[in-house]
Amino acid sequence: MRGLEITDERADFLKADYERGFIKFCRFRAVSACWGGFESSVEINPDHRQQDGFIHAGVMATMADHTAGYSAFTIVPEDLQILTIEFKVNFLRPAFGDRLVCRSRVIREGRRVIVAESDVYDVRSGEEVQAAKALVTLMAVPKAGLTRSGA
Amino acid sequence: MRGLEITDERADFLKADYERGFIKFCRFRAVSACWGGFESSVEINPDHRQQDGFIHAGVMATMADHTAGYSAFTIVPEDLQILTIEFKVNFLRPAFGDRLVCRSRVIREGRRVIVAESDVYDVRSGEEVQAAKALVTLMAVPKAGLTRSGA
Amino acid sequence: MRGLEITDERADFLKADYERGFIKFCRFRAVSACWGGFESSVEINPDHRQQDGFIHAGVMATMADHTAGYSAFTIVPEDLQILTIEFKVNFLRPAFGDRLVCRSRVIREGRRVIVAESDVYDVRSGEEVQAAKALVTLMAVPKAGLTRSGA
Amino acid sequence: MRGLEITDERADFLKADYERGFIKFCRFRAVSACWGGFESSVEINPDHRQQDGFIHAGVMATMADHTAGYSAFTIVPEDLQILTIEFKVNFLRPAFGDRLVCRSRVIREGRRVIVAESDVYDVRSGEEVQAAKALVTLMAVPKAGLTRSGA
Repeated sequence: MRGLEITDERADFLKADYERGFIKFCRFRAVSACWGGFESSVEINPDHRQQDGFIHAGVMATMADHTAGYSAFTIVPEDLQILTIEFKVNFLRPAFGDRLVCRSRVIREGRRVIVAESDVYDVRSGEEVQAAKALVTLMAVPKAGLTRSGA
Repeated sequence: MRGLEITDERADFLKADYERGFIKFCRFRAVSACWGGFESSVEINPDHRQQDGFIHAGVMATMADHTAGYSAFTIVPEDLQILTIEFKVNFLRPAFGDRLVCRSRVIREGRRVIVAESDVYDVRSGEEVQAAKALVTLMAVPKAGLTRSGA
Repeated sequence: MRGLEITDERADFLKADYERGFIKFCRFRAVSACWGGFESSVEINPDHRQQDGFIHAGVMATMADHTAGYSAFTIVPEDLQILTIEFKVNFLRPAFGDRLVCRSRVIREGRRVIVAESDVYDVRSGEEVQAAKALVTLMAVPKAGLTRSGA
Repeated sequence: MRGLEITDERADFLKADYERGFIKFCRFRAVSACWGGFESSVEINPDHRQQDGFIHAGVMATMADHTAGYSAFTIVPEDLQILTIEFKVNFLRPAFGDRLVCRSRVIREGRRVIVAESDVYDVRSGEEVQAAKALVTLMAVPKAGLTRSGA
């Protein structure tokens, strides 16, 4: 990512901003932010699981999407907002551990259209096993332009 | 879908089974089930939103995935389980209403691989506006074969 | 699509424009164009098949993408160009007929980001069987802005 | 990929098998095969381009799909056949060079469902620039079971 960096203030702002609304409700936590990259995690409890004890696909999809969005925030000016246009996620292995970790990185730095990939890992007794992979298409729009009509 | 039908008992079982774990936590409700089709809804509260007031993409993605899964359940024998292999979702318009409705229908009835599409509607003062569309690939596996190693 | 129409001149221009470069090489033909919709077809020959006689997934994917792109062209001013940002395609059934037909329609009319879906049908003795379905994300850019750096 | 290897005979067989039907027509060439990995390339000529001189998205999508399929062939017994269930591809940058290279690798080694990712590079004066990325879901089926009804 060109060796660029974000300021500590920007990283702290984005980490705090990450944990709001539905994401706070789901108890996802921001772990770290760098230029083009973002990491998050969640301690799994029964609310994250399905009837069969596996972690719900929707938990992993939400984490993959939201973390990808914040990896995009790290490369745009502060007056831009990030919207998810679409994403695709493959569930590689059933997840049943006590924690998930998600690492996202920007793979296309466009002025408007940004693409990121997210890897979700199931943490089992300290070992990380990849449970899901997503490709996420995002759009950077001026905050003033973020209206209910969309981009 | 060949004019086939599911029994009232099966429909009631699937509707009750729909609302468990993460889905119950998110307050999604099953509305109806027919052969190859399933409908769900959710009353939106602040926990479903983002910082900017829009409904979080993860809410819609989870709903699209889970409802597609239950549309697949309607066409398989009762001793089979449904797993999501992958899905793709496009967010067509920002959602900001008081309720979401999701309608899923099977578009490929395979013995093992089932494909469904989900349409998510944002309900605004009673009018439905499509907010998201997903294509979901699912797999039917014997319940006994649902192990932690995956399909 | 709001009952809007395109002129016969625009439809004829888009139909001729459809059949160029790789698409001409693949022998795809434009069939019809309307506001937000486009239809194409191809007579299958051995060059379109795989070693096992089935029509190659790449033929269907290319057709789904290109036809979606031209459905987007029908709703934008003539000085705009359409780029494919990404697409996803599910192969629903093996295709082995003598002709493919693809029908695409715009499901999100954005100023910049346009989403279309494409249905590809395998024509077997005159009967159409759906072989593939795609969701395609496209971007409208000024022709002058179509540079090698991308959007 | 567990340090497993494929025999030279199997690698040679797969490389020859790669270049048939639509793929031969498109002039794609197999470059190398290893356990869980496959590489291909194509010398670009006017037939691969769009009207504007860029390489057509369908060329890259076909290459990403077919090469992913052959990466899956490297990890299955010789009596199994590989089918593409679905794929998703993001076009990261316009491609306009004289050659494309595609590298695919298996990221989920299932008995039946295999997932691979493909990276397509545009070669410009010897420098590789990533032009597309795909996530491909494949299925291994017995050759005897590869019927016209699908999996």
